[in-house]
This record gives sequence, structure tokens and C-alpha cells, in this order.
Amino acid sequence: MSAPEARRLDTRYLSAEHVAGMVRRKGLAECIAGVASYLRQDFLRWNDFDKCARVATHSEVGVIELMPVSDARSYAFKYVNGHPSNHRYQLPTVMAFGVLADVETGTPELVSELTLTTAIRTAAMSAVAARALAREDVRSMALIGNGAQSEFQALAFHHLLGVEVFHLFDVDPSATRKLAANLERLGLAWRAFGSVRAAVRGCDIVTTATADKTRAAILTADMIEPGMHLNAVGGDCPGKTELHPDVLRLGPVFCEFEPQSRIEGDLQQMPADFPVTELWQVLAGRIQGRSGAAQVTIFDSVGFALEDYSALRYMRDLALELGMGERLALIPALDDPKDLFGFIAAEASIAAASGAATLAAC
Amino acid sequence: MSAPEARRLDTRYLSAEHVAGMVRRKGLAECIAGVASYLRQDFLRWNDFDKCARVATHSEVGVIELMPVSDARSYAFKYVNGHPSNHRYQLPTVMAFGVLADVETGTPELVSELTLTTAIRTAAMSAVAARALAREDVRSMALIGNGAQSEFQALAFHHLLGVEVFHLFDVDPSATRKLAANLERLGLAWRAFGSVRAAVRGCDIVTTATADKTRAAILTADMIEPGMHLNAVGGDCPGKTELHPDVLRLGPVFCEFEPQSRIEGDLQQMPADFPVTELWQVLAGRIQGRSGAAQVTIFDSVGFALEDYSALRYMRDLALELGMGERLALIPALDDPKDLFGFIAAEASIAAASGAATLAAC
Repeated sequence: MSAPEARRLDTRYLSAEHVAGMVRRKGLAECIAGVASYLRQDFLRWNDFDKCARVATHSEVGVIELMPVSDARSYAFKYVNGHPSNHRYQLPTVMAFGVLADVETGTPELVSELTLTTAIRTAAMSAVAARALAREDVRSMALIGNGAQSEFQALAFHHLLGVEVFHLFDVDPSATRKLAANLERLGLAWRAFGSVRAAVRGCDIVTTATADKTRAAILTADMIEPGMHLNAVGGDCPGKTELHPDVLRLGPVFCEFEPQSRIEGDLQQMPADFPVTELWQVLAGRIQGRSGAAQVTIFDSVGFALEDYSALRYMRDLALELGMGERLALIPALDDPKDLFGFIAAEASIAAASGAATLAAC
Repeated sequence: MSAPEARRLDTRYLSAEHVAGMVRRKGLAECIAGVASYLRQDFLRWNDFDKCARVATHSEVGVIELMPVSDARSYAFKYVNGHPSNHRYQLPTVMAFGVLADVETGTPELVSELTLTTAIRTAAMSAVAARALAREDVRSMALIGNGAQSEFQALAFHHLLGVEVFHLFDVDPSATRKLAANLERLGLAWRAFGSVRAAVRGCDIVTTATADKTRAAILTADMIEPGMHLNAVGGDCPGKTELHPDVLRLGPVFCEFEPQSRIEGDLQQMPADFPVTELWQVLAGRIQGRSGAAQVTIFDSVGFALEDYSALRYMRDLALELGMGERLALIPALDDPKDLFGFIAAEASIAAASGAATLAAC
């Protein structure tokens, strides 16, 4: 057996500007489709992954979470906060970054922004689920909640499912105006409505992506029509829901990772034995998704670490393809791994330090 | 009430070279003393912190861990791996980096290397514990294990406890030669020995900082003399121990965070009701440390997230003082937080993307 080759310690860094530039060069719809493809590949290897619920640290004003996941080859984690009052400081309410590391050596290979990337992967996940669960002939989608996620959802469903018209509603009319203007730029058809009920009526798909951190029932059972697919994106942490419990009883409910969704999803409102199917089982052909054109299907999405793993993989590969990013020297490159001191030492300053630090300092 | 000011999104980045440069300018002994001072401050506010055990992801060849901790003001986490076979690839066995974030907004304020910094904080922690637990008249220390941590331990105990001579032993003679050469540069007295037993004999303090990931009994009870303080640094994960169980019965045992130390420390060999005292209780004057000159005291150190919190705080403040580091744009700066799409959009490429992504791609 020959000796393994020396490995490089380089960590690639992708800033928010790098990722925005990569997405502009590749095209946003193409990136969403690419991430969707990576997501499908990874969800089909579901049992290869070491999964755990996110590690959340709560304060009075928000939450900071770490979301790790790994298979035998790569380890990923995401740092993400949730601070509903951040607009007071003119800061985003959700900010994220993440790391992809080599499981064989522990080397961090990529440090990347994940605020933009999360919007892309969430839309891609919604589309992957809808392709498995919605009717094939979908043409219209209601977008309830017209915030930061909404354009990404519209693009994903237009390009990956063939949705042609979007019905818009938000409690904040300026959010709807912003979305409408962006849909115009994208050449996508839209209509704005004055209520959730009016926006939902007659649509094939209903996407909820609202931000209010309270128990809400934005959709009620009387709004839901036969054959609809519900894509519930915004009910994603304890105390934050979007669907009335009766809506969840209208058809089969699908989720990403059951232990997490029972705590964070709209499912949190239901008893522990309320039936739910993990989406990977449908993608793998092990469990049927939709059983007929008149059935209502519900994807109770919360966002799972594996989705960030897929998105980080995609961005790493795209950065390599486009030659984007910078090098971070996060780890010291040592000639002798047992001589960490030698990396710091410069004779003059170290030797002269005696006397500077006194016993009293400790 | 006036409106809060807008906050900046800048994240400061400290590479391994930045930190090495900062330490050269400040002096390594001064940095160890500084971190020791921050550690003491933070351990004295023990109950202010939201603490949890580290989140470990194991593979066949190593482990990758996330270590989060926070108080009401700052949140910190460390990424650290442990891969005993990394020398095959000429990579360090342990690599680390970490983040300090603002709890009020979730903004990541600092991304820093933590490989060098961990060596500094581990030595500082050892010295803080020894000042609380060892005799006041210590003059000699055995250093069992002469790897990457050893110079830092020697400097900490010379400057913060007045240790004048170091007895060296390592199963790898080249490690001892490397340490001896570095101690010469530092002007510190040393003697090398051919066995653990010979190195330990007559010393006031015994520090074990070995790296072998197996159950080991490097120190046995018959080597320990009255009045010694044992500083056990290397037994720090399940299956990795340095002290024979009988050694732990020779005197009171102290640890950082009991739930973690019972799993990771030399304590893992003892029954669940074996007595142990968290060090903060001694620092706070709530529990006596040493009861007399002839007593043996044992610090079963494993490394706790709070130590990295203190070290990140110190490095952030030192970077501000010295004007070191670079800016990372990890988070997109949005004019309208609801218009993430606007950050990416450049009309030409986005609008032209239709057709590029096909249904087949998903």
C-alpha cells in the first residue's frame, strides 16, 4: 500500500456577494433546478445520513441554531438565527452561514453564506415535494406571504412544475407590491387579492410563507378545494404555525424529518400519533404520494439540515465550475503537527515576554 | 422611547496567521495570562450561561464536534475535529475554528481560527485550576506528553504559578527533543527522563497531555506523592483516559462541567456517584479546594465550550486593540429585508433564464 498523498488545508470562502454573482452568472432558475437535483439525490440516500434535530439556543428576543448532518463523505452544518425584531436595527430577521467539511480528515472545505442559499434550497425543496405530491396539470399557485422567500417559490414552481399564474396576498401591501414588481421583471403572470380566501380560490397549489412568530391559522379548512396541494413553508418553529388543525386532516401530510417536524412544523398542533410520511419514502417509491386527482396533499416543510448539505454541495461545485470564491486560512499549516508553538514563535517577542505577565494577572 | 440605531453587519475574520501575529505582538505569556483572566471572570458567572454537552458526529476515523454556549450578551460555538490518523495526510489531528455572535440580533461578529487559540485557552484553564488547587510553593512540573500543547502548559505554569523546572517524558523522543529546544528558546529549565515514573518523581505538579485515543493508565497510584497536583489534560473523550482509576481515589477530583466530564474525562472510568466538584465552585469560594499541603488534588480537564467563549472574547478584544483582522461579508446587506431577490437580481441574466431550467432537471 502506498502512502496517502498530503492533503491541502485550503478552505474556500463564499461571501453573500460571491454567491449572488454565481447565481447571476448561472441564472437563478438554473440554480434552483440544480439544487433541486442535488436534493433529490441526497433524499434518495436518506439512510446514509447521520441526522439529529437542530441545537437551538433561545433568548428573550430570538433564537440561534446549529444544524449538523453528515454522511460517510461530507459533514455540513448551518448557523442560523431567528430574530423577529431585527427590523428595528435594519438587520435581516434571519441570517445564516454554513460549513462543508471532509469527514475523513475533519478539514473544513467550504465556509459559505447561507442567507441567499437557504432561500434557493427552500424553494427547490418545495418544488421537489410538489413534483412528487401535486397533480401533474398544475397551472396556478397562491402565494400567501410575499416576503423574502416568495420570488424564489414563484421561480421554482414556474420552471419546475409549469405554474403559469400566481395569486398574491400579504397583510403588508408593500410586500405584495415588491413581489409583483419582481414577478414583472421575471415575466411571470400575477394577480393581487384582498384576502387569503380570495387568493386561494381556484388555485392548484397554495404556498404559505408567512413570518409571524405566533400560532396562526392562515388557512382554514373551508378554503381548501379538492385536488389542491398545500406547500406550508412558514410554520417552522415551536409556536409558529400557519394551518388550522382541520386543514391537516383534509389529506395525507408529508414532512422532511419526522422527529423535527413534530416539534417545529404545523404538525406540532396534532397528537403524537397523527399520521405523517417522510417525503424521502415517496421519492424512493416506497410509499404512494397522491392517490387521485381529487385528493388534497400537504407538505409541512420546516427546513432540515440535509437540505443545507445539498445546497452547500451545489454551491461548492458551482464555485469550482465558475472559479469563484476566496481562500481562508482558518487552520494553521504546520511543518511539524506537534509543533504548534513553532507557528507562533518569533524569538524576540516570545522570549522577551517574561515579566510582562505577572502572577497577579490570573 | 427613541428608535434603536441601525447596527452594522460586519463580521471580523481572524485567520491562523492573524492570531499568530497578534500573539507575537502581545507576547504569548501575556496572552495566556489575559485569557486566564477572562476565564476566571466567566467561570465566576457560571450560572449566567446556557450550557450543553458538545454535539459530536462520529465516523470510523474520527469525530467532528460543535460546542455552543451563550449568556444574555454573547453566543459562541467552536467547530473542532479529532482525527488521530491525520498525520498520514500531513494534516493536524485537531483543527478548530469558532464564532462569536450577538445574542440580541444573531449577527455573527467574529469568525476566528481556534487551533492556536485552543492551545492558549487550555493552558490558561490549567493554570487557573492549579492556582486554585495546587500548593502555593510549587517549583517543578512533570510534562508527560510533549506534543503540541506542551510549550503552552510550560509557559502558563512558569508565568502564572512560578514553576522553575520541567521534567519531560514522551514515548516519542523526537517530541521531547522538540519541546526541549523550544523551552531553551524560552529560557526555561528542563530535564528529560526515560520513563513516566522517573519524570514524575519529586515534582509538585504533574501535567499529562498525551494524544493516544485508547484507554491508557499513564499515571498509576504508586507514582503519586503527597501534596502533588495532577493536571490531566489529555483524557478528554470517550475511550481516551490517562489516569488509573486508583489515582482518582487519591484525593478530591475537580472538573469543568460535570455532565460532560463524566462522559469524556478520566472520570468516565468511575461509578456515577463518584464524587467530583465543578471548579467554578472553588473559584467562587463556595467549596474548598486543597485542604492541606500533603493532600493530592486532581483536575480532570476535558475542555468546555465556556473556555472557547472566553478565548474568543479575548481574541476579539485584542484584535480591536491591535487593529487586526479582515472583514467578512457573510450576510447580505439588504436595503429592504423582504427583498432578498433584489440582492441577486440583475435583469439580463435572471429574465433570460427561462428555458434554461427544464422540468427534467428536477
